[in-house]
Amino acid sequence: MNFEMITAAANRIKGHARITPMLTSPFLDDIAGRQVLIKAECLQHTGSFKFRGAWSAVSALTDNTLKTGVIAYSSGNHAQGVAMAAAKHGAPAVIIMPADAPRMKIDNTRALGAEVILYDRENEDRDALGTQIASERGLTLIRPYDEPQVVAGQGTTGLEIATQAAELGVTKADVMVCCGGGGLTSGIALALAETAPNMRVRPAEPQGFDDVTRSLVSGQIERNAMMGGSICDAIVTPQPGDLTFPILKDHCGPGVVVTDDECLRAMAHAFARLKIVVEPGGAAALAAALFHPDQFDGDAVIAVITGGNVDPAQFARALETL
Amino acid sequence: MNFEMITAAANRIKGHARITPMLTSPFLDDIAGRQVLIKAECLQHTGSFKFRGAWSAVSALTDNTLKTGVIAYSSGNHAQGVAMAAAKHGAPAVIIMPADAPRMKIDNTRALGAEVILYDRENEDRDALGTQIASERGLTLIRPYDEPQVVAGQGTTGLEIATQAAELGVTKADVMVCCGGGGLTSGIALALAETAPNMRVRPAEPQGFDDVTRSLVSGQIERNAMMGGSICDAIVTPQPGDLTFPILKDHCGPGVVVTDDECLRAMAHAFARLKIVVEPGGAAALAAALFHPDQFDGDAVIAVITGGNVDPAQFARALETL
Repeated sequence: MNFEMITAAANRIKGHARITPMLTSPFLDDIAGRQVLIKAECLQHTGSFKFRGAWSAVSALTDNTLKTGVIAYSSGNHAQGVAMAAAKHGAPAVIIMPADAPRMKIDNTRALGAEVILYDRENEDRDALGTQIASERGLTLIRPYDEPQVVAGQGTTGLEIATQAAELGVTKADVMVCCGGGGLTSGIALALAETAPNMRVRPAEPQGFDDVTRSLVSGQIERNAMMGGSICDAIVTPQPGDLTFPILKDHCGPGVVVTDDECLRAMAHAFARLKIVVEPGGAAALAAALFHPDQFDGDAVIAVITGGNVDPAQFARALETL
Repeated sequence: MNFEMITAAANRIKGHARITPMLTSPFLDDIAGRQVLIKAECLQHTGSFKFRGAWSAVSALTDNTLKTGVIAYSSGNHAQGVAMAAAKHGAPAVIIMPADAPRMKIDNTRALGAEVILYDRENEDRDALGTQIASERGLTLIRPYDEPQVVAGQGTTGLEIATQAAELGVTKADVMVCCGGGGLTSGIALALAETAPNMRVRPAEPQGFDDVTRSLVSGQIERNAMMGGSICDAIVTPQPGDLTFPILKDHCGPGVVVTDDECLRAMAHAFARLKIVVEPGGAAALAAALFHPDQFDGDAVIAVITGGNVDPAQFARALETL
């Protein structure tokens, strides 16, 4: 896993993934007490950054492998990313999703042409299930973060952040990333280490699911006690990845832990000030920037909004916090 | 009013206005029965395209004129655009707004540093009021559409549409624009006439406020019977402008009239599929593309989303249509 894999992924992705905008608002700067730049990956195809890693991984497969098909497990965003990337490559896709995933994510994954298999998030091991079905059907498993080509694809977000921040005059900042298994966070960290060395990447996580934050403190992989109970479904993962954690350990600053309520409020501010739709787990980084100013000391913070796949009822609940 | 004024405005705006993204979704293509490209001007500074025209007009003023200050009347989007453009130029701004404008638009205009004066939309003439206060206080009046530098600024949207559509392989399409007084519609029409001659600009208007559509049919300026009663506040204007109508007449195809309910449903689809926040009047063009397929005959339609300044309660109402 290295920087060259990210630039190679950027070449494969070019013209397929969207270059998402970097947004700003004087109203958000006022709340945070410093300049806030928002990388709006909710505007990526399929509504999350996951399309980047999925395209990177699928486009790296041979024609024969594509013909047989791919399989992925995902709470919903990697699911949609892989489903669309596979469909555009003419490859069949099977996606294993938790039965309690947001309705919209399950429906979209099916509508993008994938076969969806539901599992029980609390009692079944999705990796074991994925490995088993992959082997039975001869499919290629594309893991959501412990897969080098996926991390390389997510890292292309970092290349854009470096360029877009520099255009806005920002070359030194903490870069908050909503963090589940660490695929995006490690990819951005690798990209920025080369292209914007004065940026420091830091994970944002929901209370009770702060495995990466605690792992960075202890220096070894820590697990979460629970696997459900947060509205931030997109970034609830059991522990940092075996591939991603060494990268996070080498490159990242301390994590910031946010509450579900802070995520809802961040969603509402993104609605009012940026005109973007953000899902709870995609709002953690912005929540950290807006509501934990004491955890930062620089003049600028960059918050990566990771996804926007939220059910209308959940979104309406966020708007009620305004 | 000519194309060179638009390229000159583009030079003054560069680095100040945002290049907004052109979005797509296979789900929206399915509904419309053809390819739909969405120019997301709700992601512009202050949440609408109006910032372009405001910056263009304010940046064309002399230092002495700026020092005295500017005045504008607006249902809310031109208000915020002028307020922010004036503030960034260090110029005082007075904005005349209807007392029934969305709360968020009034609050934001004040928060951006402008003095807000409220008037009665049904019974007062905002142009007379603006002219009077401008003369009393020595302020420069920046009209929302009957002002060449404003039209030139809005026309920069057209330059971006030509480039971005071509990148997506689209050079021939109907371009639906949410239309009030016609500033944006005429600016885009002038820009595309030079840069993408196979594009045809057409206005989208709310039922009961289809003055431009009727004017294009009769060949002369027609007025609306009412001045209130649509949720599409941003594009409810009494009649096409004296400056804009001759341009519209020369360049535009027939208008498409949409209902308030169709606008709410288009807002909901933009939420679900594009992850953007759209106000009712900003959704008229997308509503036309999605729900009036019989009014188009080409393979592609471009819908310009003009603004996203919507109160949370109104937005929640739109989500209920999903």
